[in-house]
Amino acid sequence: MEEEFASRVSLTSKSGLNAIYPSRDPEMISFTGGFPDANLFPTQELGNSFQNVIGGAQTPFQYQIGQESEPLREQISKLLAADGTQVSPSKIMVTQGAQQGLDLVAKLLINKGDGLVVEGPTYIGALAAFDAYEPTYYTVEMEEDGMNLADLKKILIQQQVKLIYTIPDFQNPTGTVMSLAKRKQLIELANRYNVLIIEDAPYRWLRYEGKSLPTLKSLDTQDRVIQLGSFSKILAPALRLGWLTAGKGLFERLQELKGGSDLETSSLMIQTVNYYLTHYDLDAHLNQLQKSYQVKRNAMMTAMENYLPDFAHYTRPQGGFFTWLTVPKDLDLEKIQNSQLKPNFHVMMIPSTNLFPDKKHCNGARISFSNVTLSQIDSGIQRLANGLSSGYQKQSV
Amino acid sequence: MEEEFASRVSLTSKSGLNAIYPSRDPEMISFTGGFPDANLFPTQELGNSFQNVIGGAQTPFQYQIGQESEPLREQISKLLAADGTQVSPSKIMVTQGAQQGLDLVAKLLINKGDGLVVEGPTYIGALAAFDAYEPTYYTVEMEEDGMNLADLKKILIQQQVKLIYTIPDFQNPTGTVMSLAKRKQLIELANRYNVLIIEDAPYRWLRYEGKSLPTLKSLDTQDRVIQLGSFSKILAPALRLGWLTAGKGLFERLQELKGGSDLETSSLMIQTVNYYLTHYDLDAHLNQLQKSYQVKRNAMMTAMENYLPDFAHYTRPQGGFFTWLTVPKDLDLEKIQNSQLKPNFHVMMIPSTNLFPDKKHCNGARISFSNVTLSQIDSGIQRLANGLSSGYQKQSV
Repeated sequence: MEEEFASRVSLTSKSGLNAIYPSRDPEMISFTGGFPDANLFPTQELGNSFQNVIGGAQTPFQYQIGQESEPLREQISKLLAADGTQVSPSKIMVTQGAQQGLDLVAKLLINKGDGLVVEGPTYIGALAAFDAYEPTYYTVEMEEDGMNLADLKKILIQQQVKLIYTIPDFQNPTGTVMSLAKRKQLIELANRYNVLIIEDAPYRWLRYEGKSLPTLKSLDTQDRVIQLGSFSKILAPALRLGWLTAGKGLFERLQELKGGSDLETSSLMIQTVNYYLTHYDLDAHLNQLQKSYQVKRNAMMTAMENYLPDFAHYTRPQGGFFTWLTVPKDLDLEKIQNSQLKPNFHVMMIPSTNLFPDKKHCNGARISFSNVTLSQIDSGIQRLANGLSSGYQKQSV
Repeated sequence: MEEEFASRVSLTSKSGLNAIYPSRDPEMISFTGGFPDANLFPTQELGNSFQNVIGGAQTPFQYQIGQESEPLREQISKLLAADGTQVSPSKIMVTQGAQQGLDLVAKLLINKGDGLVVEGPTYIGALAAFDAYEPTYYTVEMEEDGMNLADLKKILIQQQVKLIYTIPDFQNPTGTVMSLAKRKQLIELANRYNVLIIEDAPYRWLRYEGKSLPTLKSLDTQDRVIQLGSFSKILAPALRLGWLTAGKGLFERLQELKGGSDLETSSLMIQTVNYYLTHYDLDAHLNQLQKSYQVKRNAMMTAMENYLPDFAHYTRPQGGFFTWLTVPKDLDLEKIQNSQLKPNFHVMMIPSTNLFPDKKHCNGARISFSNVTLSQIDSGIQRLANGLSSGYQKQSV
């Protein structure tokens, strides 16, 4: 059968997306998934919201007849405005998590072979979404203050690029933040070379220190930025609710594609999240998340400082869920993970291999601190340190 | 911007999918959407199911860690077995409504230009899903007992076809059922010409008279049938839960594509529907649905017999939500609807134009009886009859 699949499948079947799911080894300490801490879900409030919406005068169980998402889109518009980004509710589309936004935007824009710039490393799920449209990838190296814009400029000069994909805040997987100077330059480059930008911002509200920088969308004067957001990390993933903002010309076409993909997002989920935002204090909830995740981030930094061998380097994220580990170039962390870390040390992370379109960068790994306990962080990083040293010796022999 | 979209958008932007959504004219009687009757939703039982799942020991708000859907897949497997179709839970995938199944299967199989057979007329949302993958459509005429298989055979002999899309039970939009003889022949043809089949079966459980026929999937011995099902019509659309069954070779690839499209379906929805199926009597609920929709179907048939002019013909569906209206070939029902029915008679249906890939068949229309009251059926069909006669005179002058 294999030969009868569409050509796109030759890419999508190698995405490695399932690496984000946990192992079944009961001893395993897993730093893989970008899962929020389930203890922080506002379960009571969401439960009440469901109950009230289900018991309300208008059934939330029917297909949408057109306007059900308007109150939620207004709430999202207010959230964005409070964050300095002005977007009319009519230019906000509710999606099946931000993941669906990635799929729809690529579906809208990418013909086979079209140029698409991604950060290297980047979000594994974005590559899984984009792969299905068979772009020509151009990868721009990540630096401490966001992507290398000199590299980007070279690509834009030399290649036909349609779309740039970036996560400016607490990038997945490196945890870095794009500087204000780079944000402004990126918008200028997009304007000059007539390129669209996806600004993926699921972690933006999870900042644990320092000051928030303006979104790319707020710096955009030519409707070039499609911003994606999500309730998965700030409320709960199983709501499967995200949003995208796009200019008018794109918006209508994206809605048509959404219809073909899944008809619509659940009216029940839409009304429930709107109920939550109307009746409860999201800011207070965010505050609590920030405090809790900050403690975990700090514990992770302490453990890494205490235990990791000298040849290992890591980022110090100001927010989000991830730190990024790098080891010398001749080490292959996927091999070390499979031969040492998982079987012998019962610890795992996401090696960099699948986080680059060319799958040729093997000396990095994403380490998530969001869904592990403080003691798991401590013992897991000890195990990692031991496993790395052991793998280092073996590969260096 | 228009010229910068991917080429697939030139098709998807003309799907006409939004025609299924109701009008804002308060006097309108709409026979358009395939909406279930909201009065028949098991609201109390679903509400209890949500409450129990949310209040349970394990949070349903997290991402899935891999096995959450297993109990539901087992329930679906049992449902299918009771219907004569044996499918292992491991070959059932939970989807975002059956609509996502259509998108994923086309995404898996269709390269630009690949041959795809559809029934003419067919489900508008299927065309919207398929359009995004730019197939070459071959349309097989619908007869009273399902698609014209002599036509299909000619196409299979002359053209390269990869996939056949059919709705054997209470077809959308014609309401017809494929005969057992044709089901068997269709499977034989697929085997002989090495083609896959999508069997879309959202209405299968809504039979109001006569005996159920075996599913295509149950007649399939070569894993050629991908069956799609949905809880939208039998429980509630806003659950956004459907399923697909596929052979092992396809299954894994479809799961990868699902990951790229939306990561996963909501664990909360999956657990809630599983709770409902475990704790409540779906058969009793289906029985109630069948009785209520049968009354509506009967009212629709009576009204059509009483009021429609002689030049109008219609099908007598044994189940599902739709009857199919046809008028003489020189009449264009989309034009009559826009010039007469909607503005002057405040009644609407789905004209056939967008239900054929070539958009050249204009003398048919889908009329839905599921989400209108008995009195709306009576007065709506009176209005339709008057409007058609008026349009007939104008177009015949």
